[in-house]
Amino acid sequence: MIEPFAAPEVIRTKRDGGRLSDAQIDWVIDAYTRGGVAEEQMAALLMAILWRGMQPAELARWTSAMIASGERLDLSGLDRPTVDKHSTGGVGDKITLPLAPLVAACGVAVPQLSGRGLGHTGGTLDKLEAIPGWQATLPAARFAGQLRSVGAVICAAGDSLAPADRKLYALRDVTATVESIPLIASSIMAKKIAEGTGALVLDVKVGSGAFMKDAASARALAETMVELGAAHGVRTSALLTSMDSPLGRTAGNALEVAEAVEVLAGGGPPDVVELTLALAREMLDAAGRPDADPAAALAGGRAMDTWRQMIAAQGGDPDAPLPRAAETQAVAAPETGVLVRLDAYAVGVAAWRLGAGRARRQDAVSAAAGVVLHTKPGDRVAAGQPLLTLHADDADRFGAALAALDGAVTVAGTRPAPVPLVLERIGAP
Amino acid sequence: MIEPFAAPEVIRTKRDGGRLSDAQIDWVIDAYTRGGVAEEQMAALLMAILWRGMQPAELARWTSAMIASGERLDLSGLDRPTVDKHSTGGVGDKITLPLAPLVAACGVAVPQLSGRGLGHTGGTLDKLEAIPGWQATLPAARFAGQLRSVGAVICAAGDSLAPADRKLYALRDVTATVESIPLIASSIMAKKIAEGTGALVLDVKVGSGAFMKDAASARALAETMVELGAAHGVRTSALLTSMDSPLGRTAGNALEVAEAVEVLAGGGPPDVVELTLALAREMLDAAGRPDADPAAALAGGRAMDTWRQMIAAQGGDPDAPLPRAAETQAVAAPETGVLVRLDAYAVGVAAWRLGAGRARRQDAVSAAAGVVLHTKPGDRVAAGQPLLTLHADDADRFGAALAALDGAVTVAGTRPAPVPLVLERIGAP
Repeated sequence: MIEPFAAPEVIRTKRDGGRLSDAQIDWVIDAYTRGGVAEEQMAALLMAILWRGMQPAELARWTSAMIASGERLDLSGLDRPTVDKHSTGGVGDKITLPLAPLVAACGVAVPQLSGRGLGHTGGTLDKLEAIPGWQATLPAARFAGQLRSVGAVICAAGDSLAPADRKLYALRDVTATVESIPLIASSIMAKKIAEGTGALVLDVKVGSGAFMKDAASARALAETMVELGAAHGVRTSALLTSMDSPLGRTAGNALEVAEAVEVLAGGGPPDVVELTLALAREMLDAAGRPDADPAAALAGGRAMDTWRQMIAAQGGDPDAPLPRAAETQAVAAPETGVLVRLDAYAVGVAAWRLGAGRARRQDAVSAAAGVVLHTKPGDRVAAGQPLLTLHADDADRFGAALAALDGAVTVAGTRPAPVPLVLERIGAP
Repeated sequence: MIEPFAAPEVIRTKRDGGRLSDAQIDWVIDAYTRGGVAEEQMAALLMAILWRGMQPAELARWTSAMIASGERLDLSGLDRPTVDKHSTGGVGDKITLPLAPLVAACGVAVPQLSGRGLGHTGGTLDKLEAIPGWQATLPAARFAGQLRSVGAVICAAGDSLAPADRKLYALRDVTATVESIPLIASSIMAKKIAEGTGALVLDVKVGSGAFMKDAASARALAETMVELGAAHGVRTSALLTSMDSPLGRTAGNALEVAEAVEVLAGGGPPDVVELTLALAREMLDAAGRPDADPAAALAGGRAMDTWRQMIAAQGGDPDAPLPRAAETQAVAAPETGVLVRLDAYAVGVAAWRLGAGRARRQDAVSAAAGVVLHTKPGDRVAAGQPLLTLHADDADRFGAALAALDGAVTVAGTRPAPVPLVLERIGAP
């Protein structure tokens, strides 16, 4: 077969600041997925894209080509609208757990193909796997069935969706080409669009514990993804939310499941409840159900009922006790005053080092490990009072976690002005 | 073994516009040569270097690390100074052939480790291999011996010199990272410095048939290489020379050998003689022999004697007839007037397509194929008069060569102002 392009020509076009043609994009993504474009050639192209950027129409085509590298699910035969949520990743971000059953309980189906965690932010599948019996992989045939019967599915994305993304993601990781807005946006959106959802809400985190450290870059990423959604017929909006301190009072797998269940039971930390409801309203709006009342569904126990069905449908026992850490160690407040800062990134790294996260894709994670916060920024603390407790399967882990927390806590004399959790909304009104 | 760096960190440093530390450079070149840094990681780093450039001290260290990836020859025990020449590549550039024996005949040894051609410019080894019996590979032990006995060696660079460059060169070729001044300069200079020469003269070509199309970029490349030479204790200067039309009257392997022999016999095209003498003077100056008289050595036949010894020492028969093409085809002047342009690049591509060059490293070349010019820019021509003749082993080649020459010739009413061959000199006075 004669290839219509040579890879060096395609790289050169982008290297010199040009726009890749639709035909070049279609060819290079397809050939790369099939192995006809070498890893080193794609690495050079990715660095050139990081350097030169992509025009909106060019990026839309790039994303389309990634979707076309695999299957695109069709959920249009369902009796309900569909909507999904994606978070760019934060520390203690267990929002998907209460959110998916809550939105499903309001009559909109939530088809969430999810991933595992890498680095300092946990993955939704890792969290749910802390529930005895729960299975992340679901045969394709059961996916639509569970969406119909339960209304919510959270499961592992199969190999058939956007295979180009899987290769690109692994390559970007080892070639320092992760931090490119077009590459981040196309990676997220290709998977979400291929999954077949009718609408999508993005939770773009901003702050020390987030991938995007400042509002400007978070906004640029959000705008790019919202545009890509629209270009592919998926109604998309985004909330920019604060990630300077951890969400809720837990970071870790079983610990976060327990907190999610508290929220579903009508309790839980106020910030987790607030964000769950804000995202639920956004999702219901996007799915054409602006009159649904998620607060009532949460308070009335319908979200909890859906959660129990969703867990049971994938083999999990919603009543089984969750794994508990064999070892704990408290970390005390260094002085008396107001806790004004509890750095999200540091807590995320501590939880990771305690065993809740993985350094390499093939590593196993501990279900029980993590961090429990006894205080949140804004709380008064007394010197010596426990600020947080480390949980691990093995006490040897505490040293590295404590090192991660060095400098993560600031206690001051006066209470700072509260920072809003939801900073901004991006998308069509 | 614990690696002192992770490749993505090194890539990130350059990607973000930083200077690579000496330790990072030493590590990444060594690890890449040994296979510990993957091709895709080096590809991303090369694209980041093409984007961000390198500071002079950083590039000097990068070049040192490439040299340190292999052996650096020591020719200091020789009874004469040494000097080499490197050309960035031009069409019809057979200058090395008369130049090396000419400089050797003036008492300065020329240790030239050379390469083969790729694309539209021919390689010196390919040309010499047109001589029956001549061998490009020379055991290391015979290299110094021939330098002592004959004074000039042109042979293939062994695998022991700058092995990092061999890997980098192949990688740059497929990842569109060739066109970077720091990468070009370090590739050339690492090989030349490792070869052990005491001084070096660079012939940096400018024009349509050259790698550098304009004087500004040729000058930047020349300055970078002259600095790198100085940083490594090799006295280096450069001539910028014109490559808008082919050098001499031939492009092709045996055809260029024959022309070189004409020059050694005291004849040959004026431009070839002029550049040979200009480079010889520059080399003799650099080697500390400013009083040598290369014109006399050429006229007196001493250069020819050295040529014959040099060819014979490597198994070649200087008296054997050279291969001749089975097929020829003349190309006629389109109109009457003055030939004002005969595009070097087009002639180079035509010679390549006739069989004189190779498209892939593993291809064989034809000794006899090439182009003979009957006229040079500035000459009067009559419509229908043969401008040039194509030579090939197979008449099927003529079509593609003629296509390459389409638009390559301009005939006008008036003679243009002559362009000097040597445009500029760069280096210490």
